[in-house]
Amino acid sequence: MFEERFSSTLPFPSKPSGLYEPCRYFLTIGGKRVRPVICLMANELFGEITEDAWYAATGIELFHNFTLIHDDIMDKAPLRRGKQTVHERNGLTAGILCGDVMSIYAYDQLANIQKNLAQVLHLFNKTSIEVCEGQQLDMDFESRGDVTIEEYIHMITLKTSVLLACSLKMGALLGGATEGNAEKLYEFGKNLGIAFQLQDDYLDAFGTTQKVGKQNGGDILSNKKTYLLLKGLELANDEQRVVLDEWLQKDGDDKVAAVLKLYKETGADVACREAVERYSQAAFDCLEQVAVLSKRKDELRVLAEYLLQRDS
Amino acid sequence: MFEERFSSTLPFPSKPSGLYEPCRYFLTIGGKRVRPVICLMANELFGEITEDAWYAATGIELFHNFTLIHDDIMDKAPLRRGKQTVHERNGLTAGILCGDVMSIYAYDQLANIQKNLAQVLHLFNKTSIEVCEGQQLDMDFESRGDVTIEEYIHMITLKTSVLLACSLKMGALLGGATEGNAEKLYEFGKNLGIAFQLQDDYLDAFGTTQKVGKQNGGDILSNKKTYLLLKGLELANDEQRVVLDEWLQKDGDDKVAAVLKLYKETGADVACREAVERYSQAAFDCLEQVAVLSKRKDELRVLAEYLLQRDS
Repeated sequence: MFEERFSSTLPFPSKPSGLYEPCRYFLTIGGKRVRPVICLMANELFGEITEDAWYAATGIELFHNFTLIHDDIMDKAPLRRGKQTVHERNGLTAGILCGDVMSIYAYDQLANIQKNLAQVLHLFNKTSIEVCEGQQLDMDFESRGDVTIEEYIHMITLKTSVLLACSLKMGALLGGATEGNAEKLYEFGKNLGIAFQLQDDYLDAFGTTQKVGKQNGGDILSNKKTYLLLKGLELANDEQRVVLDEWLQKDGDDKVAAVLKLYKETGADVACREAVERYSQAAFDCLEQVAVLSKRKDELRVLAEYLLQRDS
Repeated sequence: MFEERFSSTLPFPSKPSGLYEPCRYFLTIGGKRVRPVICLMANELFGEITEDAWYAATGIELFHNFTLIHDDIMDKAPLRRGKQTVHERNGLTAGILCGDVMSIYAYDQLANIQKNLAQVLHLFNKTSIEVCEGQQLDMDFESRGDVTIEEYIHMITLKTSVLLACSLKMGALLGGATEGNAEKLYEFGKNLGIAFQLQDDYLDAFGTTQKVGKQNGGDILSNKKTYLLLKGLELANDEQRVVLDEWLQKDGDDKVAAVLKLYKETGADVACREAVERYSQAAFDCLEQVAVLSKRKDELRVLAEYLLQRDS
């Protein structure tokens, strides 16, 4: 329901086309629209979907895409969802400026909100700042050798989870939820986001993902400090750590298979699955505590189970 | 008065330092703070300076610096105010991300505004979008050979003037001004901004500017499409146009002197000074029409005259 309204009412004018054509391009290459959809669902827990919630959902999705466009520059990523990234397609300048203008359009959507505008804006700003901080930490980690699991969870919380959590809380507040219920939904989203990211780490290594444009074992080949790698280094005995460290220094056709073997031998694979389960459970517990009829929460429950690829 | 409060209450936390240290650095290398000061002055036309106006002024200055940081990347500028630009000092990633987060802090300042928040936000967003569009047009012009004077004025209006105009209008609205008075102040700022930019074009070519880190004739050496060049091409006879076109194709120690000579021969120099005078006059006329006691407007008048380097 969101996608239709969103893609048919993009707020960009036609000119200057060098600015707005890449914006439209990027918004049409796909995306699951999880954040706006979850915002609307949270809003609907408390009654009919409000006009304010549509503005919030649209603003959140525009903001999310702005961060993707800039992250792709920082990560030097040529592809996103199997399609060219903006800076790859239209150059660095277009990538920077079209991200900038998209973030302003996000704020302009939010400025249409009638109810609790100041409160909702502060929540959104706090979250947006955290997303930037998460991106900074993610990049800091690349050159650090002593990242702990705790720091990693903190980083993915900021980079990924808080925007999901904020989407839910904004939807709830704009639907007239109590602060208590809104906060429970925030915690639901935060735990769900962490579980989702850890599962993403797991699937990148072990799973057959259906994700377009993503290679299995990509994280291993790029030495990305995922939960699996950090846990593997933590759980490894001296011998295993030496082997793992050696693989981090070199490349080769057998690197992925060798590192996967080490993840299994150290038990990092099981630890990762357990962590996914733990955060998932925490998420569903929070959802349970939101004081509305259980049946009303079915949609959110189903979406969460879909995201976590669990059979419900 | 603004500078003291601004620099002692920067809203950035200490960590992650890779994100916030460059933000603080950039805000301490100077800047005239014209926009926030003019916002506060407009506010004071209608009574005591309000707390809302301080938030607006701070948000505007943060936003302005965010655009400078990103513009410097796009322009590949190594220096700003004689000091290293952020991307030169801390890398591309820091330049992008510290600009992004600064723009969010700008919005978070604005979200503190109590009075007419939605109205003020829409004005600010409209303006911010125009600033991005102006930057896009400026870059589009680099590769175009048929830019008209009218298009050039439109571009500098968006890129430079509307934020000045918006600063005045926001200050006025937050001081309780009527829509009519606020709009006159907007027009004052718009014309002032255009006059200021055209004078900047003139001084870059002919003037002895006191600006640190700027070279005389820099625009000529980089073939920048300024008012002088566009007007020179427009006014030139066939022979002069051939010579001017030739200089645009080549470099050399005598390029600046030769092009300046052509600006004088074609009368582009006089046309530029006349345009500065015309827009300045339009600005002061608008200020005159703001319905408050003339004496209250002295500060704004003096500031405008200072910016235009006119002897009052």
